[in-house]
Amino acid sequence: MAKLSGFPELLPADRAVEVAVVDALRRVFELHGFANVETRAVEPVETLLRKGEIDKEVYVVRRIHDDASGDSGSRSDALALHFDLTVPFARYVVENAGKLAFPFRRYQVQKVWRGERPQQGRFREFTQADIDIVGDGTLPFHADVEVARVMAEALAAVSAVLGAGPDDPSWFTLQVSNRKVLEGFYRGLGVAEPTAVMQVVDKLDKLPGERILELLAETGLDETSARACLALAEISTDDTSFVERVRELGVEHPLLDEGLDELATVVAACADVEGVRVTADLRIARGLDYYTGTVFETRMTGQEQLGSVCSGGRYDELASDGRRTYPGVGISLGLSRLLVPLVANGLTSSRPVPSAVLVAVTDEESRPASDALAQRLRRRGIPTEVSSAAQKFGKQIRTAERRGIPYVLFPGEPPRVAPSVKDIRTGDQVDVDPDTWTPPAADLTPTVVGLGPHSKETTP
Amino acid sequence: MAKLSGFPELLPADRAVEVAVVDALRRVFELHGFANVETRAVEPVETLLRKGEIDKEVYVVRRIHDDASGDSGSRSDALALHFDLTVPFARYVVENAGKLAFPFRRYQVQKVWRGERPQQGRFREFTQADIDIVGDGTLPFHADVEVARVMAEALAAVSAVLGAGPDDPSWFTLQVSNRKVLEGFYRGLGVAEPTAVMQVVDKLDKLPGERILELLAETGLDETSARACLALAEISTDDTSFVERVRELGVEHPLLDEGLDELATVVAACADVEGVRVTADLRIARGLDYYTGTVFETRMTGQEQLGSVCSGGRYDELASDGRRTYPGVGISLGLSRLLVPLVANGLTSSRPVPSAVLVAVTDEESRPASDALAQRLRRRGIPTEVSSAAQKFGKQIRTAERRGIPYVLFPGEPPRVAPSVKDIRTGDQVDVDPDTWTPPAADLTPTVVGLGPHSKETTP
Repeated sequence: MAKLSGFPELLPADRAVEVAVVDALRRVFELHGFANVETRAVEPVETLLRKGEIDKEVYVVRRIHDDASGDSGSRSDALALHFDLTVPFARYVVENAGKLAFPFRRYQVQKVWRGERPQQGRFREFTQADIDIVGDGTLPFHADVEVARVMAEALAAVSAVLGAGPDDPSWFTLQVSNRKVLEGFYRGLGVAEPTAVMQVVDKLDKLPGERILELLAETGLDETSARACLALAEISTDDTSFVERVRELGVEHPLLDEGLDELATVVAACADVEGVRVTADLRIARGLDYYTGTVFETRMTGQEQLGSVCSGGRYDELASDGRRTYPGVGISLGLSRLLVPLVANGLTSSRPVPSAVLVAVTDEESRPASDALAQRLRRRGIPTEVSSAAQKFGKQIRTAERRGIPYVLFPGEPPRVAPSVKDIRTGDQVDVDPDTWTPPAADLTPTVVGLGPHSKETTP
Repeated sequence: MAKLSGFPELLPADRAVEVAVVDALRRVFELHGFANVETRAVEPVETLLRKGEIDKEVYVVRRIHDDASGDSGSRSDALALHFDLTVPFARYVVENAGKLAFPFRRYQVQKVWRGERPQQGRFREFTQADIDIVGDGTLPFHADVEVARVMAEALAAVSAVLGAGPDDPSWFTLQVSNRKVLEGFYRGLGVAEPTAVMQVVDKLDKLPGERILELLAETGLDETSARACLALAEISTDDTSFVERVRELGVEHPLLDEGLDELATVVAACADVEGVRVTADLRIARGLDYYTGTVFETRMTGQEQLGSVCSGGRYDELASDGRRTYPGVGISLGLSRLLVPLVANGLTSSRPVPSAVLVAVTDEESRPASDALAQRLRRRGIPTEVSSAAQKFGKQIRTAERRGIPYVLFPGEPPRVAPSVKDIRTGDQVDVDPDTWTPPAADLTPTVVGLGPHSKETTP
């Protein structure tokens, strides 16, 4: 019965925060026309292992019967749990290509599994929220702009759920870069192996500049070029002024021009999204091979140790069936990675139950009357529960307190004694008409509470 | 890349139906104060195998690294995918008992996995939606009433999503029975082994009455008693009149009285739920050992071959940690089991995208203007996408048609030419103010279409 390390589970009040965040994401994604998709949890092991980097982290899945028979998974149809939502989505696109309308916009919120060693911010089971736009053969660049814009709005919506108001500093910084800028710049410098340089620059978060220079020298760069590469990586601006700063480094290449244009377009398009910071950040390279243009990472204010909580980019071959190629651009938000540490730091919701009202029960004989009262509130969308025991009213009020339910409705004895509602926080009690009384909107659903500087506790 | 048998995946328009159903369930559950919980996908193999009946159906999960090393799962910490949501919930309750407020009401909508041979209505991966109320030490009987009432409302809400109006026959019949009625009746007849009789009666769906009588004779019953047991099992009423019909069989036992009282209370409490049929159905015995009182099954009209799509009951020991016992009452709705066959029969939604509006793009230079128009609609909650290519307007209209998007917004050339909206189904086009125009509510979100007698297609 012990908890399993790496498999986080949330208490109901904390889970309510996760649900609120998923709702907020969904609202933004659907407003932009992204369709929801769910894929099965398993893929053939072969499909998963084709992505070399994951290797030993895959969880193999086998019927216990086959397992006991000593059949040890060499079969080509062995299955494993997916470790991300991109590989299954690519397979889904190829499998259903004839039935999808391209460009195809989808969002997907599901668990993924990785057999990693559990550590801070790393789990064996966690939830990701992905958006992608995928084309059939071609995909215009404006899809990159769209994905950036949608995820910027989504991050702002998550910020709002976590309690940040319009005047608060934003929780998230969406950092955008473009592989064409980096590769064009390196090529303009005469670098023969841009990928090697990119992989070094990608470590700038973890290593000091001097060490980066040494590593760049090891790839064969002369000192001037290495310093230029480092200077490029250190450019980070809140607007399109990065273009000028890159130009000042004096390097020229057609690919660089193309990349600067693209990156400036993305950053400009996100400029008016409130509640999130969007920066051009040329240290972001995303070491992975398959990105070909725009790349994204995301830092969370005060949670920098988590690394990037929301990453992605453009890849010219998201999927292929041999005949057709499907280019894509997407971003993946690490929901558990972001929320679980915040929950450990006190993030939760104002109550562990949806109920805004507890209807008191005078005695077991009159329980049906209390049930009927509850139904009259529910019919108007007010989450309501009925007291489980016909205890003394003082005890029933304490039950509401323990559950964080803000209001207790006493049935009274109509027509002599009218029903009344007590706000258990203030102690105020007033007679009400159960067909019209409604709690204030702020009390209707649980609110997110418990975070430090950004917290907006709406319950006193 | 082939589809995996037993692992159904839905196309976007079909998935939209599933999402709408889950939303409807969630709304009902939360209105009644049920809190959402998600548990991890894996449990220790030992925990799962303790439930003997499942046996070979469990999927063992192992890191590929451990797998390759020949370590074949004899370790006591071997993991497997959960095959239902009850076992994980029981573990969650015991693990978090100190932090939960009892009686604890929870709902849980998650995938479960069973290594069964795939066949009609049986999957290896499928989604269940469970509600349970669990007590600490004791749980009053009115929890049975509550769970029945909530699931009846939930089934009615699902019916409404599937397109049944208030005057249509209901999709679902929630059949309620009570083990105390059966056991009390058998004991009143002098039967020594009520459980053996119950297991025979439970087969009445699959076997003719004559065969049931033979099987009852094999358990040692005389013919009069066997006929009485069969007569009891054949009682099915839409109201509490079953009590009288049982009484007419002339059997008496205190446990029978208690069971009849309970069952009548449950059926009476559900009588006013519209959109669902609730019956007392004494053939329902639920062969499983752990049920101790109320039991539920659910038939779907026209889909009887699926068997019960929503089952559960009362169990006096949902969980136990050795010192404390947690009684519970719950019902589990087989979401995939119910939806996947309907989808195969044509159930889908009116469009595969959330978008109600496609904003046309005059030329690539004016794309930002179209983007800005789209934002003005989204700000008012209207799901909107922007045309991916600045083709001739006729082509863009056909794109909308292909996606099932009902409206195309043309940006015009303000101030000379006002923006206009075309309803692509009627061809009507009118000038609009993008800050006030709103599609009719019926077009705002996709609607469920494609089912036979219950279908209510709202798009012409």
